[in-house]
Amino acid sequence: SASSTPIRATLFPGDGIGPEIAESVKKIFKAADVPIEWEEHYVGTEVDPRTRSFLTWESLESVRQNRVGLKGPMATPIGKGHRSLNLTLRKELNLYANVRPCYSLPGYKTRYDNVNLITIRENTEGEYSGLEHQVVRGVVESLKVITRQASLRVAEYAFHYAKVHGRERVSAIHKANIMQKTDGLFLKCCREVAEKYPEITYEEVVIDNCCMMLVKNPALFDVLVMPNLYGDIISDLCAGLVGGLGLTPSCNIGEGGIALAEAVHGSAPDIAGKNLANPTALLLSGVSMLRHLDLHDKADKIQNAILTTIAEGKYRTADLGGKAKTTEFTNAIIDHL
Amino acid sequence: SASSTPIRATLFPGDGIGPEIAESVKKIFKAADVPIEWEEHYVGTEVDPRTRSFLTWESLESVRQNRVGLKGPMATPIGKGHRSLNLTLRKELNLYANVRPCYSLPGYKTRYDNVNLITIRENTEGEYSGLEHQVVRGVVESLKVITRQASLRVAEYAFHYAKVHGRERVSAIHKANIMQKTDGLFLKCCREVAEKYPEITYEEVVIDNCCMMLVKNPALFDVLVMPNLYGDIISDLCAGLVGGLGLTPSCNIGEGGIALAEAVHGSAPDIAGKNLANPTALLLSGVSMLRHLDLHDKADKIQNAILTTIAEGKYRTADLGGKAKTTEFTNAIIDHL
Ligand SMILES: CC(C)[C@H](C(=O)O)[C@@H](O)C(=O)O
Ligand SMILES: CC(C)[C@H](C(=O)O)[C@@H](O)C(=O)O
Repeated sequence: SASSTPIRATLFPGDGIGPEIAESVKKIFKAADVPIEWEEHYVGTEVDPRTRSFLTWESLESVRQNRVGLKGPMATPIGKGHRSLNLTLRKELNLYANVRPCYSLPGYKTRYDNVNLITIRENTEGEYSGLEHQVVRGVVESLKVITRQASLRVAEYAFHYAKVHGRERVSAIHKANIMQKTDGLFLKCCREVAEKYPEITYEEVVIDNCCMMLVKNPALFDVLVMPNLYGDIISDLCAGLVGGLGLTPSCNIGEGGIALAEAVHGSAPDIAGKNLANPTALLLSGVSMLRHLDLHDKADKIQNAILTTIAEGKYRTADLGGKAKTTEFTNAIIDHL
Repeated sequence: SASSTPIRATLFPGDGIGPEIAESVKKIFKAADVPIEWEEHYVGTEVDPRTRSFLTWESLESVRQNRVGLKGPMATPIGKGHRSLNLTLRKELNLYANVRPCYSLPGYKTRYDNVNLITIRENTEGEYSGLEHQVVRGVVESLKVITRQASLRVAEYAFHYAKVHGRERVSAIHKANIMQKTDGLFLKCCREVAEKYPEITYEEVVIDNCCMMLVKNPALFDVLVMPNLYGDIISDLCAGLVGGLGLTPSCNIGEGGIALAEAVHGSAPDIAGKNLANPTALLLSGVSMLRHLDLHDKADKIQNAILTTIAEGKYRTADLGGKAKTTEFTNAIIDHL
């Protein structure tokens, strides 16, 4: 109710176009009377010369306390020894599952109709271990690490997600014909969890075949769960089917119910500050965050207004072939609330 | 000329539909007066009880001697300790580059028009090292190995290919933002080779972004070169853009100019022996082999006959929505020679 205490949520606007699209989210959420109070922190590459930190303790603590947050794009600091801030956040906050719903936007034509799938990516290990070394000159190795614990955790999340969202099928994506031990363990964990969800169809699909099937007929899939790198690849491929990363939401799930929703597109420094950016991915990520908070009425209301605005086509940003400024598109959404 | 000694080439018909589609190749090549004498060997899962071998020394030696060959699909032997015969052949014959041209077939409609790209996959190392181990219970690792030698070799092949085929751009596909040392070395080698080909545009594309761009607009790419697993994934994705693995050729290149062309689709045991299989992938792979032998007239003649038959649409196999038997389709191609 309107009189209850607002929910505190962390907001990291990020770099480049981040602040503009975050502004759009704040305006629309306010216009929709969403009971959220944003706690804004700067995380990104423009560093405060005093702290010399890209990521402060306060920023992390804010998400840990609030348990929900929304983040814009962050560029990777340049220079040796810096890893992507996105990865650092995943690691520090133990964000083990990356969930990306991917559906065709009504009225926005691509080569594909009726795409409606969810990729769930293991977000902490696999090929992202960071363990690499040179064996001898000219021979380098990197380690892919798969653990039972992380595999079970993301499989659990995927099946639970399928169940509560009324989805019928979970496909585990792998290359266990080659990586029998690592991807084999991942599959074994998925099978264990699948047994607890007899109402959900479980299948296993080799990644190369999966990519071929996705471009031929994405309607073959429903929920996809997979190790880190495959998730990185397939979630972008799926975004491409419906128009790209500028249109697709993403939400990272951590232990104890933390959720950090994020726009996964880049910070687009070339158009930053020009009121040209498309805030859709961040907005829909904000909607994911609202669903995580069980604020489904608000989520539906905002999502419908976004989709209607895009479908009508009168106000579209340049990336969608339109001429609308970020603020015009934002106001059009508010008019549709 | 017709009177010169025929070229000996190895033929591995393989499993399942392999013998039928190999028959189609033999008939068409004969009808086109291709100066090839096939040396046929059985490699596959149906094992001679005396030799108990899936792959005989004579079979390998045949390719080593002839330096060219064509292979059909091979199933992976069931049971512990067997690796895919495809992989064994790559390893034994040191087939370091897998080349897959991928183009839209005139008259065969998919969601994409005018696809025309070549994927060149490093075929011997990377994620396919086979080195995996369990560290402790529930924690397994696999090693990705990248070497300067194999990376330079495949990069050389890709740029040379681009040059002789009049291609303008080579894109190296990687995930060096995460695997800085392994994929970083691969990129370093590509850059070194790129310097020797100033007439060819060189670019580097992160694999997730590449997959998104491919499904949005494949015309952005020309020749793609990449480590093993990315090649496995992207070549299948590209095949999907134009209709699938049943339509796309593949050729493996080894040291000293060995070429083993292959149909990369499965052995389709469900339709084996029923005269229903589509021989197109094996036929076009055979055409790749002819080009490798510089028999371009014969290659053009056969390729045109295949494409015309498919474009006319009167004789298409069931996988392409038609009713033609393998032999009817084969005869239609012969009529078009
Ligand atoms: C920026 C990069 C490190 C990151 C990843 O590889 O995970 C990105 O591609 C993503 O999907 O969030
Ligand atoms: C069958 C399998 C081992 C093989 C691979 O992964 O290389 C296949 O997908 C291919 O592309 O030839």
